[in-house]
Amino acid sequence: MTADIWDVVIVGAGLSGLSAAHLLTKRDAKLRILILEGKDRVGGRTVSFEIPAADGADRWDFGGQWVGSTQTHIMELIKELGLEVYPQFNVGKKVLHVGGPTSKVRSYRTSIPALSPLVLLDFTQMLWKVRVKLCRTVSVQDPLRTPNAAELDSMTVHSYIEQHAWTEELKEQLGVCSRSVFGVEPSQMSFLFFLMYAAAAGGLLALLESSPGCAQEFKIKGGTQQLSECLAQRVGWKNVRLGSAVTAIWQVEYSNLYPVFVHPPAKIQYQPALPSMREFLTQNMPVGHIMKFILTYQTAFWKEKGFSGEIVAGSSTDCPFCVTFDATSPRGNPALVGFISGQQATLWKRRAAVLSSLVKYLGPEAASCIHYEEKDWAKEEFSGGCPVSVMAPGLLTFYHPSLRKPCGRIHWAGTETATLWCGYMSGAVQAGQRAALEVLAEVSHVVLTPEEQESLIQGQTLHRPPKPTALSALLKRLSRKSVLIPALTIGAALLLVRKRDVLVKIQTYVGAF
Amino acid sequence: MTADIWDVVIVGAGLSGLSAAHLLTKRDAKLRILILEGKDRVGGRTVSFEIPAADGADRWDFGGQWVGSTQTHIMELIKELGLEVYPQFNVGKKVLHVGGPTSKVRSYRTSIPALSPLVLLDFTQMLWKVRVKLCRTVSVQDPLRTPNAAELDSMTVHSYIEQHAWTEELKEQLGVCSRSVFGVEPSQMSFLFFLMYAAAAGGLLALLESSPGCAQEFKIKGGTQQLSECLAQRVGWKNVRLGSAVTAIWQVEYSNLYPVFVHPPAKIQYQPALPSMREFLTQNMPVGHIMKFILTYQTAFWKEKGFSGEIVAGSSTDCPFCVTFDATSPRGNPALVGFISGQQATLWKRRAAVLSSLVKYLGPEAASCIHYEEKDWAKEEFSGGCPVSVMAPGLLTFYHPSLRKPCGRIHWAGTETATLWCGYMSGAVQAGQRAALEVLAEVSHVVLTPEEQESLIQGQTLHRPPKPTALSALLKRLSRKSVLIPALTIGAALLLVRKRDVLVKIQTYVGAF
Repeated sequence: MTADIWDVVIVGAGLSGLSAAHLLTKRDAKLRILILEGKDRVGGRTVSFEIPAADGADRWDFGGQWVGSTQTHIMELIKELGLEVYPQFNVGKKVLHVGGPTSKVRSYRTSIPALSPLVLLDFTQMLWKVRVKLCRTVSVQDPLRTPNAAELDSMTVHSYIEQHAWTEELKEQLGVCSRSVFGVEPSQMSFLFFLMYAAAAGGLLALLESSPGCAQEFKIKGGTQQLSECLAQRVGWKNVRLGSAVTAIWQVEYSNLYPVFVHPPAKIQYQPALPSMREFLTQNMPVGHIMKFILTYQTAFWKEKGFSGEIVAGSSTDCPFCVTFDATSPRGNPALVGFISGQQATLWKRRAAVLSSLVKYLGPEAASCIHYEEKDWAKEEFSGGCPVSVMAPGLLTFYHPSLRKPCGRIHWAGTETATLWCGYMSGAVQAGQRAALEVLAEVSHVVLTPEEQESLIQGQTLHRPPKPTALSALLKRLSRKSVLIPALTIGAALLLVRKRDVLVKIQTYVGAF
Repeated sequence: MTADIWDVVIVGAGLSGLSAAHLLTKRDAKLRILILEGKDRVGGRTVSFEIPAADGADRWDFGGQWVGSTQTHIMELIKELGLEVYPQFNVGKKVLHVGGPTSKVRSYRTSIPALSPLVLLDFTQMLWKVRVKLCRTVSVQDPLRTPNAAELDSMTVHSYIEQHAWTEELKEQLGVCSRSVFGVEPSQMSFLFFLMYAAAAGGLLALLESSPGCAQEFKIKGGTQQLSECLAQRVGWKNVRLGSAVTAIWQVEYSNLYPVFVHPPAKIQYQPALPSMREFLTQNMPVGHIMKFILTYQTAFWKEKGFSGEIVAGSSTDCPFCVTFDATSPRGNPALVGFISGQQATLWKRRAAVLSSLVKYLGPEAASCIHYEEKDWAKEEFSGGCPVSVMAPGLLTFYHPSLRKPCGRIHWAGTETATLWCGYMSGAVQAGQRAALEVLAEVSHVVLTPEEQESLIQGQTLHRPPKPTALSALLKRLSRKSVLIPALTIGAALLLVRKRDVLVKIQTYVGAF
């Protein structure tokens, strides 16, 4: 408990919270801003640290890592902070293993996925249905306006796949997509939510590819946690309190308080209670469950053997990971990165199983790694999972209006509330900035431009969504890239409170846990 | 914070927690038991209080109210505590309104629902499919053993209905069933969860009917909260601390601690963290959203006019409630009880809308009530909703093994963990007793009978599930009763901790909120 008075209190020093703080500070330097963070670090679902590597030690991202050129908000921030990006390496043979443990492991040097013509055709018709028929009609801003919204929200992604995919192989591959992009099974997610998420990224392929404009295009030199560290630097580290989890937020009537809040805020008690709609929304957005691992090696033996490092393994293959990629660092330290999704994360002696599968797919050299390091986000307090909170069926059409709607003086940020690249680092920045504008409209509305004021009234973003790729480009793309590149996405979150009197009590455990 | 030492700490003084405490006390009087409850009362999702009535004031249940003769655990408890039951009144014309606001309001003096022959046929084939083909093959104890479990868990109840119901009218009525039994839409629930829930009650009709053996058969004279009050009396009020919310549970290695814990425990921090499987299970079980209202009148005008008081209204009818029933008290004070489900609860000026619909269905006398009282469980702290936490699709098949599995010294109770009448008061008692047996096996195993020890090893209950009604009885039942009787179900929950040293810290806010 503290007796200090702030204009804005932000809960959560992830990318969204710090983006909000940054914008607030830039627009109105007089605002007294406090950022409370339960963890002992900034960055939320981004974290970068050193592990043993070929030349001693090097740094890798163990949370969100990829950005793309159509992710306007994050690309602008990277530029503003003076950071650099470099492309995801994807040259060489890709490995694909679906259809059961005894089925053939296929690799393909061309960039056409090693799918049979029938499965490719199936994939094409499925993509066509999802992209052209559905994604283009989805309203990201207001999903309830989507034609047939109730019906689309009443089915799981699995049910849609069962109805519309023809081949078992495609069904298995779509399972890999779901696990790697969302960290959940197709059975656990609303189909309308899935469409909204894809539409916010400019289309389904944008989620899956590493080609220009897609989600896995670039990585950030030095790691993504730097984004938050640089923002904390600009906002002032003195205003950031680590190890300070917020456990209760009291809004007292008639006081001038302007909060903005972290998403998902599962463990905070509110007085007065949040509206039922908002409370149910929070309860109904399960977070994904995906583990990330980095393996460092003396040499990038996979490249020497002509592999890109990309492996896609279906759930039926006895392989603990769903995908891997090359993760060789900008300094040249060879590494692979991979993802282990929900159920597999609990069933395996993971290090040995990962190495054994890599030996099977890339050769015996894979056994001799320098170091294996994994990060289980489900065990990370105040995150509880990764990469993103999804919506179970029947939620969007009931509770979506509460997603961004302020509750008294509480304003909501976090990548889950974004309308562009929802679920990604870019969405975290967009959402943080939008929440900051909402707060500025309350406390310093003179600093807002007419366009910003208009955008708040309309509930619109100032940026246009990425242009969906035309149908004609689909097959071209399909022949260029594998479509099974996952995104370990990022969200962050924040809360701002304007505190002109001391009636709001924010009880914090400073380092108590 | 306290320096006292207990053998068992129970979190939650609802029916499940208090049933556990009661069994523990009966079996081993030396056990030092502490019951911590966040609310300022016992009873959890049961609460009974007085409101103005014809003869001054009378008491009604504003949470769970019904019990049935096949609900062995609760019926035995009622007998043991010396309480009395009386049947739900259901004689007279029932009102049915589906198909849109301008569609005909139908009433039927016979007990065959006022459905067209086609809809009745549709209903019969649907019941047949669900009961005979599916419910009987579902394993309540271990749903993963259900044939085709993954597929059944990957679809919503809505998706199943869309595929298997032929008429729009039946679809609308099944929506009413879902809202009134679970407090959620058919789109928000896993079909496998729905089947498991029905199987735990002995069949689908048992959930819906008020006939002998079904969920809405009896009410308890004096109200259901008495169950918890009597149990607290027997356990000793001095051992029950109200207004004491548990916010953290620390299990320290090598100490002898035996906890049992409340479900759903959304806002407690654990050290060490719960296993990911358990954490995700908790996150993925949204609680239903249903409001209950009681209207008191000078006379039971509906009975005088030949109505039973039962009204079923589809979601398309502009009516704020989904069902009503007669709720005349044992002392004869006329009343109606009704339920307003999720979305309707947020959209309506409810009192006026309820009265206006009742006037439409029962006549102008409905406008002149003595008192309108409603209870919104979504606003009830430490409950967050009613009647029960359900499972979204894709959950059972992944996380069910964690549902009853102790986490270190934490044992799990609450009606959601029951295998008989899961979601009901009877399930709360069963689950509490099962958790108590688990704890006794750890701390006083000599008091367990060989049968009880065996049941724990097998993970089985000692009671047999209620016998499913034979197919031949279906149509007979169908012609006897409306199938749209809802259950406002009850769950409670608890935590037990054996505390032989002081390393476990249970931080409580005693009346702080």
